[in-house]
Amino acid sequence: MNAPTRLLIHGAGGRMGQALLRLCAQRDDCRVVAAVSARSPSQRVVDGVPHFAAAELGGAPDFDVAIDFSLPAGFDAILAACLARGAALVSGTTGLSEAQHAALDTAGARIGVLWSANFSLGVALLEDLVERAAAALPGWDCDIIEMHHSRKQDAPSGTALALGAAAQREGAQPRYASIRAGDIVGEHLVQFTAAGERLELAHRAGSRDIFAGGAIHAALALAGRPPGLHRLRDLL
Amino acid sequence: MNAPTRLLIHGAGGRMGQALLRLCAQRDDCRVVAAVSARSPSQRVVDGVPHFAAAELGGAPDFDVAIDFSLPAGFDAILAACLARGAALVSGTTGLSEAQHAALDTAGARIGVLWSANFSLGVALLEDLVERAAAALPGWDCDIIEMHHSRKQDAPSGTALALGAAAQREGAQPRYASIRAGDIVGEHLVQFTAAGERLELAHRAGSRDIFAGGAIHAALALAGRPPGLHRLRDLL
Amino acid sequence: MNAPTRLLIHGAGGRMGQALLRLCAQRDDCRVVAAVSARSPSQRVVDGVPHFAAAELGGAPDFDVAIDFSLPAGFDAILAACLARGAALVSGTTGLSEAQHAALDTAGARIGVLWSANFSLGVALLEDLVERAAAALPGWDCDIIEMHHSRKQDAPSGTALALGAAAQREGAQPRYASIRAGDIVGEHLVQFTAAGERLELAHRAGSRDIFAGGAIHAALALAGRPPGLHRLRDLL
Amino acid sequence: MNAPTRLLIHGAGGRMGQALLRLCAQRDDCRVVAAVSARSPSQRVVDGVPHFAAAELGGAPDFDVAIDFSLPAGFDAILAACLARGAALVSGTTGLSEAQHAALDTAGARIGVLWSANFSLGVALLEDLVERAAAALPGWDCDIIEMHHSRKQDAPSGTALALGAAAQREGAQPRYASIRAGDIVGEHLVQFTAAGERLELAHRAGSRDIFAGGAIHAALALAGRPPGLHRLRDLL
Repeated sequence: MNAPTRLLIHGAGGRMGQALLRLCAQRDDCRVVAAVSARSPSQRVVDGVPHFAAAELGGAPDFDVAIDFSLPAGFDAILAACLARGAALVSGTTGLSEAQHAALDTAGARIGVLWSANFSLGVALLEDLVERAAAALPGWDCDIIEMHHSRKQDAPSGTALALGAAAQREGAQPRYASIRAGDIVGEHLVQFTAAGERLELAHRAGSRDIFAGGAIHAALALAGRPPGLHRLRDLL
Repeated sequence: MNAPTRLLIHGAGGRMGQALLRLCAQRDDCRVVAAVSARSPSQRVVDGVPHFAAAELGGAPDFDVAIDFSLPAGFDAILAACLARGAALVSGTTGLSEAQHAALDTAGARIGVLWSANFSLGVALLEDLVERAAAALPGWDCDIIEMHHSRKQDAPSGTALALGAAAQREGAQPRYASIRAGDIVGEHLVQFTAAGERLELAHRAGSRDIFAGGAIHAALALAGRPPGLHRLRDLL
Repeated sequence: MNAPTRLLIHGAGGRMGQALLRLCAQRDDCRVVAAVSARSPSQRVVDGVPHFAAAELGGAPDFDVAIDFSLPAGFDAILAACLARGAALVSGTTGLSEAQHAALDTAGARIGVLWSANFSLGVALLEDLVERAAAALPGWDCDIIEMHHSRKQDAPSGTALALGAAAQREGAQPRYASIRAGDIVGEHLVQFTAAGERLELAHRAGSRDIFAGGAIHAALALAGRPPGLHRLRDLL
Repeated sequence: MNAPTRLLIHGAGGRMGQALLRLCAQRDDCRVVAAVSARSPSQRVVDGVPHFAAAELGGAPDFDVAIDFSLPAGFDAILAACLARGAALVSGTTGLSEAQHAALDTAGARIGVLWSANFSLGVALLEDLVERAAAALPGWDCDIIEMHHSRKQDAPSGTALALGAAAQREGAQPRYASIRAGDIVGEHLVQFTAAGERLELAHRAGSRDIFAGGAIHAALALAGRPPGLHRLRDLL
């Protein structure tokens, strides 16, 4: 068996960061060598994991991949740290500026880089299947129905829009319906309809842990790869 | 066994009229004694069923129930004929004026009367179930998703609005999503969502024959009843 | 506003007991005056809730309703305590002997009593809806599909069997299909099928908290009622 | 625009043959130059289409593709006719002997050949998507639920078994559930389940015309191709 992949968790104090720490503790193919958080008071060890304040990022030990679920304000520092160490970067931080996205693209020439708004492996696969279905079914109507908890403000969801982009064909625009109800984690249904038949491709998320799990999966996959810009669906 | 119920089909030349004639020919609990159509050239017998032009309605033999899927212009004549004969009237004619609906209500004092925009027994039952569910689930979100063929212009469907009325509770408005795709006959999903659980009540129509079948069911049920205004869901 | 209902939680150390304590702490219409657990070392107060060992049950303060998710061995004691205090009893303890069930029935003459194998309000309502649908749809085929996590041993689930009993009609037996996959909390679909149409009644549980929430709901409903044997679906 | 593809319909008197004639009459990219039926009394023209008895097959005009939905007894003749004319053959005839299937395979060296038990394009695509999903989701549970009308005897359906074959991975067998109810034309759901998420891939057939439409699609696709053995899903 290979040595466990060494991970740095950036944004360790957030909801995703906490889930990442919890899930990594249950695995033996990866090890968190540094948990970095803006709010962390100073260096200390919690449950065997060394924690660092954001300002102490330079003092973190070597790592193979950084997983970043933080805020745009902290993004430049983690990207620079990855470039300095020759480590890969998996990021789910949203709200990045165009300049930050461009810096990420540029970094792809030197390190492995992956950014995604949704780290569910099932959704990544669904995108791929929807693209194939749309190409094979010219002339079929395409509708996307998504359901999320009632606190979600934006509609359609970013994932629904990504599925719609995958479903797009010449002269055929997918249409969207959004449901906001209860505490639904996230469900996406893409249906293709023709006379007399219907194809339904759906994903149901029941737990937010799948997003943390998908980010870890991506980090492990990037650990062994040459530099480059990656998409989650290419790592399935 | 009782003698078969004698039916008059009003609007026999339309799509629903044709379906009614076809379905009645396969049953032995009812018999079409007159098929009346605006376009029928004159009295003649087709497949054993006497056909009459609308102008000849007075010459039709006695009947127990008239089933009317025609146009508002012909409605007054069939209502008058039912009152004159003491026969019941089942009508699915849409676009009636307020005066015509009022005349129908008044007629309920003398004959059995039932009007509905949807004669599916399953939908009628669904309305009843939705009303019970809404009453039992205060505070749950309610969403109604309906799907129909892409030629359907109005949205939400009349049936969706009727389900929404059944789902309405103090301070809670159901929300609607409408899909128009392919040649879907008609699907309605009413879902109630709370934290951690969801109740889904759905009806799928796969054939328009169910509407003709429901109208025949209603006609047979009305045949043995005293005068009155009826709802389809009360005849289940 | 009324004074909060005083609850005793019996089986406070188990998974359901812990969920009950957590959920009650977030409400102001009820208050846990005693948490009783076989494993509790001795009387102490945790997060403001007095805990008692099972042997100390007699020393608990007055309560309005006991909620019992324990083991058959402890059931007689909590039933006796409720009878002694004139308090109601809500129990979800499974594996009770026939004698214990008989004692519960007898107790219904003196106190409010409710036992159920499933405390989801949605499932309780579904049972009621299925019973109505089955009565209204003679001759329709009935199929019940249930899905649970892959560790669940029994199939069909007890809830599926209860739904099947509600769906039963003369000459028509519902059929069952059971799926065991992943960590599905519990989904039940009852479908009624006729030529050309289908009615689908489904419940999806996404979190086990709904069972604790349903038990609290039942306890609050029983608090204000005269003695008697109750069913969850009658308290909706 | 190209000249319409010239079709010979073999088994024109059967349910599928009739559907093929009806659908071809509505298209201008193909033309039925011969409808061959075992029961056809002798050569005659119906609705502009020349009909031939099976014995007169040799007298049919030139055609580009034969579509065969007949019986094993007539299969050798249509295969020989296609080889003699250099025409392609699309066949949905079931119950062929091993020798007949072998002859079909051999013919693939000289003419375009395609045999399938299910000509729905949606199902053919679903097979492809399921194969991709299974490869991308090692360790996920796979369940296949199929629904058909209550007269269908075999279970699981042939299509479900084909989907199961596509879903098969090392150490993971899909499981099947079969529902037989009402007059359901055919529905297949393949679901992949992991902890916290589920992928659902489903096809619903609402009309048997889609099978005739799929066979015509296959015939037109084969018309312009070199000899070879084809699969429906490769023609999407």
